[in-house]
Amino acid sequence: MARWQPDGRRRLQDAALELYGERGFAEVTAAEVAARAGLTERTFFRHFADKKEVLFGDETQLAETIADGVRAAPPEASPMEAVLVGFAALSESAHARRDRLLRRERIIEQNAELRERELAKFAAWTSALASALRERGVAEACLVAEVAIATGRMAFHRWIEADRPVPLAEAMREGFAAVRDFVS
Amino acid sequence: MARWQPDGRRRLQDAALELYGERGFAEVTAAEVAARAGLTERTFFRHFADKKEVLFGDETQLAETIADGVRAAPPEASPMEAVLVGFAALSESAHARRDRLLRRERIIEQNAELRERELAKFAAWTSALASALRERGVAEACLVAEVAIATGRMAFHRWIEADRPVPLAEAMREGFAAVRDFVS
Repeated sequence: MARWQPDGRRRLQDAALELYGERGFAEVTAAEVAARAGLTERTFFRHFADKKEVLFGDETQLAETIADGVRAAPPEASPMEAVLVGFAALSESAHARRDRLLRRERIIEQNAELRERELAKFAAWTSALASALRERGVAEACLVAEVAIATGRMAFHRWIEADRPVPLAEAMREGFAAVRDFVS
Repeated sequence: MARWQPDGRRRLQDAALELYGERGFAEVTAAEVAARAGLTERTFFRHFADKKEVLFGDETQLAETIADGVRAAPPEASPMEAVLVGFAALSESAHARRDRLLRRERIIEQNAELRERELAKFAAWTSALASALRERGVAEACLVAEVAIATGRMAFHRWIEADRPVPLAEAMREGFAAVRDFVS
């Protein structure tokens, strides 16, 4: 085994997607993921706290991508337009990873523990987005962030499940329209 | 110990609120909760799957309370009005239990595992509410249900944290107004 593995993290993620997909998350150990990646268990735990985190390790960064997008939106943009800028930054990177994201989705939806972890992730995204919205002076920033993240999740779901992906921004605008109907 | 304990469930819940509040959820065992309630560990596990469920055991029923309220709203009520009917049904029972609910809130916010369980609970509430909204022909019922539950959580939070409780319905209307500003 090579001593220097700059892409170790990525290889572990690929190996985990393969093994969890083949046998189910609960049936696979961290040692097996490491072996599939051609790495040691010790290397695994240098990159990830446990076998769950292989699926979630990049997610804090994604929350910051959205929040930074909201901060970078022009001052005259409405809060909703700023949120769309934030999600646009996210969807650029998502397009290149659609196949991996779909496999990840299938693994998570089959395991209660992973579904709970996914919900905790969205709660953290909501906090990050609420901070960025609060800086723009949005009233009830937490609640508005929840609405934005819920709409983003709906749009993501539609994008990843469709044979011909609906653009994320279009799905989000449809979602916002339905919310508008509801609260009007 | 009396052989027949009709109020065993309630006594276990009271004992858990006391002990978790005094020493923290992680430091208390099911056996200790049972002992505080004057019951056996075996009785504890007849009522609850684990020591977490003592805090969540009644929650499925509450989701149905909201959903049934939405179903019972007059046919001409808007989806938002129907949601307010659903939450009004919930807030009636909440008023009588405010002190217990506040102690429960404090215990949950101090433990990551309980916070994740609470998020899973709200996801289940969202599903139940989405079904009831779908029956009323609401478009994007899942997303709308997420908005409604998020607004309900915000209102609950305001109601339970305030010295002079804001009526839940009033806090919800304020939340819906903020959401309306956001998506308009």
